[in-house]
Amino acid sequence: MTTIAIKERISSANSVTVQRMMDSDPFLVDVDLAGKRIPNLKSKMILHAGPPIEWEDMSGTLRGAILGAILLEKWADSIKEAEELVVLKKIEFDSCHNHSSVGPMAGVISPNMPVFVIKDRLSQNYAYTNFNEGLGKALRFGAYDEEVLTKLNWMRESLFKFLKIILQKLEKEKGGIGLKSIISQALQMGDECHNRNQAGTLLFLKEIMPYIFSYLDRKQANELFSFISSNNHFFLNLVMAASKCMADQAHNIEYSTIVTAIARNGTEVGIRISGLGDQWFTDKAPIPKGLYFPGYSSKDANPDIGDSTITETVGLGGAAMAASPSIVKFVGGTIKDIQEMTNRFRRITITQNKYYIIPFAEFEGTPTGIDIRKIMQSGLTPKANTGIAHKTPGIGQIGAGIVTLPIKPFKEALMSYARTYKI
Amino acid sequence: MTTIAIKERISSANSVTVQRMMDSDPFLVDVDLAGKRIPNLKSKMILHAGPPIEWEDMSGTLRGAILGAILLEKWADSIKEAEELVVLKKIEFDSCHNHSSVGPMAGVISPNMPVFVIKDRLSQNYAYTNFNEGLGKALRFGAYDEEVLTKLNWMRESLFKFLKIILQKLEKEKGGIGLKSIISQALQMGDECHNRNQAGTLLFLKEIMPYIFSYLDRKQANELFSFISSNNHFFLNLVMAASKCMADQAHNIEYSTIVTAIARNGTEVGIRISGLGDQWFTDKAPIPKGLYFPGYSSKDANPDIGDSTITETVGLGGAAMAASPSIVKFVGGTIKDIQEMTNRFRRITITQNKYYIIPFAEFEGTPTGIDIRKIMQSGLTPKANTGIAHKTPGIGQIGAGIVTLPIKPFKEALMSYARTYKI
Repeated sequence: MTTIAIKERISSANSVTVQRMMDSDPFLVDVDLAGKRIPNLKSKMILHAGPPIEWEDMSGTLRGAILGAILLEKWADSIKEAEELVVLKKIEFDSCHNHSSVGPMAGVISPNMPVFVIKDRLSQNYAYTNFNEGLGKALRFGAYDEEVLTKLNWMRESLFKFLKIILQKLEKEKGGIGLKSIISQALQMGDECHNRNQAGTLLFLKEIMPYIFSYLDRKQANELFSFISSNNHFFLNLVMAASKCMADQAHNIEYSTIVTAIARNGTEVGIRISGLGDQWFTDKAPIPKGLYFPGYSSKDANPDIGDSTITETVGLGGAAMAASPSIVKFVGGTIKDIQEMTNRFRRITITQNKYYIIPFAEFEGTPTGIDIRKIMQSGLTPKANTGIAHKTPGIGQIGAGIVTLPIKPFKEALMSYARTYKI
Repeated sequence: MTTIAIKERISSANSVTVQRMMDSDPFLVDVDLAGKRIPNLKSKMILHAGPPIEWEDMSGTLRGAILGAILLEKWADSIKEAEELVVLKKIEFDSCHNHSSVGPMAGVISPNMPVFVIKDRLSQNYAYTNFNEGLGKALRFGAYDEEVLTKLNWMRESLFKFLKIILQKLEKEKGGIGLKSIISQALQMGDECHNRNQAGTLLFLKEIMPYIFSYLDRKQANELFSFISSNNHFFLNLVMAASKCMADQAHNIEYSTIVTAIARNGTEVGIRISGLGDQWFTDKAPIPKGLYFPGYSSKDANPDIGDSTITETVGLGGAAMAASPSIVKFVGGTIKDIQEMTNRFRRITITQNKYYIIPFAEFEGTPTGIDIRKIMQSGLTPKANTGIAHKTPGIGQIGAGIVTLPIKPFKEALMSYARTYKI
């Protein structure tokens, strides 16, 4: 092919990529136990955020979450026993992304954890995510003490059952809950839908409320409502699974140079490219810059971790930052910073989102479709919102902030692209 | 007094005025029938928005709402009979503001209508407002047909009783619902709390939700929830009554030049000044500029009407416009327009609100404390958000928009001030 022909081929592939990404229409349709629904999740397998990684290379946060999951599964009775199991290779690990799944921070999903089931109405494909535990001491931040496990057990024994009752009715009556509609409303209400999900969580509650009245008893209703309404991040996991549907819809398009996954396992950050299949391009995960809880500093921070950057992949989070002025109180910075962050994404993306609109940017769509060519041309990488976990297993969250992705994965992806397509 | 001494006296009075306005702490504590609670509301009296006005001078919108209220009260069986009662002076009219009350648009409150009871924790004073009926055909827009009356009857028979159960429990357990906290959160979520109350309504629902589960049966819960959740303006009336508490707290301070009420009765717009007692300064009410529903234009519009400009009086609505980009889809204009509207208020107010913050304006407080001296110096009057009603009784809402207040009331107030204080 001539250079012009190749350029046209790429341009047309990228155009299809972002259209499919935007037109994907994820609905929350059910909850189930991970082992019953997630494809190829084996009985002694634990999924984690980011690219695949072995125990030896895992950071403290991820190790903590995995040990907690082993206790939760009752595969071991103590942390010591759990560690032995791992060292003896009795537990398999794999990346959530390899199982149509995503999870924030450590992103740990084990077979007996409940998960949300999200169905893309466009492709009929599914995505899965765990339930958000709330801030502070939580498994996803590497904490695993009694309090953490008690809450996770309640989530499986109670929250899961309550949501199952509600979602089965909801699916029957309305085909589930349309997540794209909630996300686009939340963007009009100051969420960027990664680190701020206050409006999204309220809008989600509004959807399930009539089902809470109608199908739960008073005790159940109160337990469910008080858990969800006291956690402004509850909707994050649903945004992530919706984003995973969108990104998967855009994946595996020949000649496409668009990024379809950004994920960190706490040691490495990795990306996937639509036209390059399931290969990960990685680099060392950086330490986020941000606001730390009292008593902690960047010295305590685990390197960047979590699948939540799937939101940035589809035009949310850092890309939608200009929609969310109040977030600077959580992650630091000024109004100018958030506008610059969205503008930075405009330089490395190929379109404006049709459905995700930023009112304050004169109702422009969020920058969508990160193009590795544009990253290499501009030298600018995506910036993402993120939580910050303690690097020592068992402690938990210590702050929230911003992370700038390293350029190496994008560079290597472009080199691989050149080889693959013989350009 | 010397000129300097007078200036200092005014400055210190104004400073007290805005502090009291801001520190007022209104809580929703109860619902009741208007006749049982509103001070001096006589058995055959109807309250209305704006300064006092007689039937002969009332616009079509206000007449329509009053005739509807007479039918609702069963003082007459037909519109013709209702008109006869009015012409025979069998019904008394008075301004809501003279009875610690406010109501949007026509603002009609009759003795058997249910009202919200708001208590200011600072002063222990009360304010009252009716329930919001939703958009479209509604009494407050001058509509009075069967559909309108059926809904109002349901509001008195059912909604009132459900809310009574909930609020009595809520008051006992938590002392009611803090409205200032909801308003300040809503400003972070894209409401300006006059014409956009989407977040406020959701946050209000969040507060009452556990009481809905716990104290209503399923049928009641569903009726209540579906009514409130389908009306994004439901919270408006509560913002208005909260604002009335704040404005009343700031009223009657000697030497104060701060505006403590702006209200329109559909014929006249009137203002009150803190240092000038209960006297109204008035001018002809203008026709708002805005977006009209299909089939209608400014030719069909009733002149500006409603007590809802009490929100602008305390730093919300037009003053907080820069917090609410999405409102331009409802009232027209651009992002620049909304920023200019807030900036216009900065030129005619004396402080930034301590509690009402605009994230996008680098977390500055909303312009608060409209000073008639600053209005006369700048020649700028407040701009307010508003609904637009059809001028013919019985039709209802036809749009929403922006109204610029005439300067005459402010000019006359300043002249009266000079006479009163012998300056």
